[in-house]
Amino acid sequence: MKIGLLIVGFGRVGQALAKILSDEATLLKSRYNLDVEVKGIVDIKYGAIYSTGGLDLVGALRSINEYGSFEHHKDYIGSISPLNLIEKEGYDVMVEVTWSNIKTGEPALTYIKKAIESHKDVVTTNKGPFAVAYREIVMHTNKYNGIVRFEGTVMSGTPAISLGRECLAGAQIYMMEGILNGTTNYILSRMEEGISFGEALHEAQRLGYAEADPTSDIEGWDAAAKAVILANSIYGLDLKISDVDLTGISSIGEEDVKKALDRGSRIKLLALISPDGDVSVRPTYIDDRHPLYNVSGVLNALLYRTKMLGDVMISGPGAGPVEAAQAIISDLIYLSRIYRYRAR
Amino acid sequence: MKIGLLIVGFGRVGQALAKILSDEATLLKSRYNLDVEVKGIVDIKYGAIYSTGGLDLVGALRSINEYGSFEHHKDYIGSISPLNLIEKEGYDVMVEVTWSNIKTGEPALTYIKKAIESHKDVVTTNKGPFAVAYREIVMHTNKYNGIVRFEGTVMSGTPAISLGRECLAGAQIYMMEGILNGTTNYILSRMEEGISFGEALHEAQRLGYAEADPTSDIEGWDAAAKAVILANSIYGLDLKISDVDLTGISSIGEEDVKKALDRGSRIKLLALISPDGDVSVRPTYIDDRHPLYNVSGVLNALLYRTKMLGDVMISGPGAGPVEAAQAIISDLIYLSRIYRYRAR
Repeated sequence: MKIGLLIVGFGRVGQALAKILSDEATLLKSRYNLDVEVKGIVDIKYGAIYSTGGLDLVGALRSINEYGSFEHHKDYIGSISPLNLIEKEGYDVMVEVTWSNIKTGEPALTYIKKAIESHKDVVTTNKGPFAVAYREIVMHTNKYNGIVRFEGTVMSGTPAISLGRECLAGAQIYMMEGILNGTTNYILSRMEEGISFGEALHEAQRLGYAEADPTSDIEGWDAAAKAVILANSIYGLDLKISDVDLTGISSIGEEDVKKALDRGSRIKLLALISPDGDVSVRPTYIDDRHPLYNVSGVLNALLYRTKMLGDVMISGPGAGPVEAAQAIISDLIYLSRIYRYRAR
Repeated sequence: MKIGLLIVGFGRVGQALAKILSDEATLLKSRYNLDVEVKGIVDIKYGAIYSTGGLDLVGALRSINEYGSFEHHKDYIGSISPLNLIEKEGYDVMVEVTWSNIKTGEPALTYIKKAIESHKDVVTTNKGPFAVAYREIVMHTNKYNGIVRFEGTVMSGTPAISLGRECLAGAQIYMMEGILNGTTNYILSRMEEGISFGEALHEAQRLGYAEADPTSDIEGWDAAAKAVILANSIYGLDLKISDVDLTGISSIGEEDVKKALDRGSRIKLLALISPDGDVSVRPTYIDDRHPLYNVSGVLNALLYRTKMLGDVMISGPGAGPVEAAQAIISDLIYLSRIYRYRAR
């Protein structure tokens, strides 16, 4: 079946997704049986475009590049509130990729609830909603018999969540340990090479790893949000960011990094996630016997400690618009499989 | 729904599975919605037990421990050919864990085809069938509208196959590189510490990592079979072990290992799996920038090189009866999800 999409938010992730859906349409259909049609795109900055017959994605991307708006696109329907489009019939899955506040989850949280109430399934990469209202979203989704997928909220396209929830089902995870933020890991890795915190941060910004305002990374909010999402989705808890024992890396000096190296250790911004709800994100000395010791630079990694298998680790990229768009693609492929079995 | 199982083969993996299904029944049901009932167990050595109302697994395990046979078990039905039981109605999934030949795939291959023809789904950890007749099994399964799961054939319970097939769907894997055999990796790691090949092998045997006849590990057949299964299942090819460019580690001397270390490298028995069907398993020098450089001892790892995400790596155990049984559990949980959606 053809899956109709509504893309809410058309920043870097939304645009990367549109490009992949356009460039890789044939491959996605032939190899993964994923056949999607983007019915609508809405962004508070660019306005909305909608077509029941499916949008021309190349044209949509060109509109933004050339005019910074959808205004000249043939399917432009005005500067409509996303909520109005979300309620509208005629699509199956809302892809929610707005810029949302990590601490309130808004506006993503409102959009997700509205889509679920409108009997749509949801794919999103926004961390905020799952870091502030996980249980609420799950209950709402169950009530309406919907599905919400959010692979891209942790480690971007690296499938850390589905590895833990689906592939490791039954293994009995009793601890998760993660390096969940690439910017801070990059800074700490560069400091080991003798560069100062300030220089390393500047470099990370120049390379596009860190935002102009790097507070969320440096102070650990980003990693804490991901740790909370893992705790909630893997252990079924209902934690919020404020439940995390959180220390960022801004107070780490060159002498701390050097001291660690001298004793054969490294400082990592380590997330520790325990099933009893103890979650911490803190600069931590780890030695060379620890599986995360060699996770350097912008690389992210998550270690699942399990009763049945011992340690299983996944490592990969933790950020980037294409990587986030790939998370959405994998979630859409998951949904298309479910739809096929449902339809049998 | 309750899933009825027929366990064919009751060696170390079958027994580990029976123990987990018995010990963890409550948890598997409450947390993963997995509700199974073992209807039958058949082993050419122990005979067969069968009960339409479900077997007592503790009693079955006790029979083997105490008598080395099912003969005194209350549900004993004689020394019946597995094929006769496989054809029998009254179960949903055959768990196939016989001792099978890695080069012919038998008797597992025959059992799998028979179960599929009898409209059963199959979960197995036997490498042979997928290394000699992958396409044949897939076509047979599709013809009968069945499902065959085989997570445990590669890296045991570490979910390397489902990571590649399901979680990384859409990422466009253009190369796989793996350390897929724990025995050889253990031997090479110990040789780096100055121990001879012979001593390291002896140690691996004493620790239970290597078989009494270690040929399949040392000469690379085991790793080659896994490489073929990855090539076939991830890229959709139809390779056999004989298609692999294969060199084992028996000719690696202490001086080779030392020479590698001197230039900052390590020798690993590396599987390289390319989508065009080029598959090799060979002792390979890899340096410290390679993601598999730090995979030491019995640890296994698989590196997926992808267009959308760059490198994603998974590492974990590659062998062991409990680990293989966990692979079966995860495949059963997968099937139970499918059955729920089918039934809707």
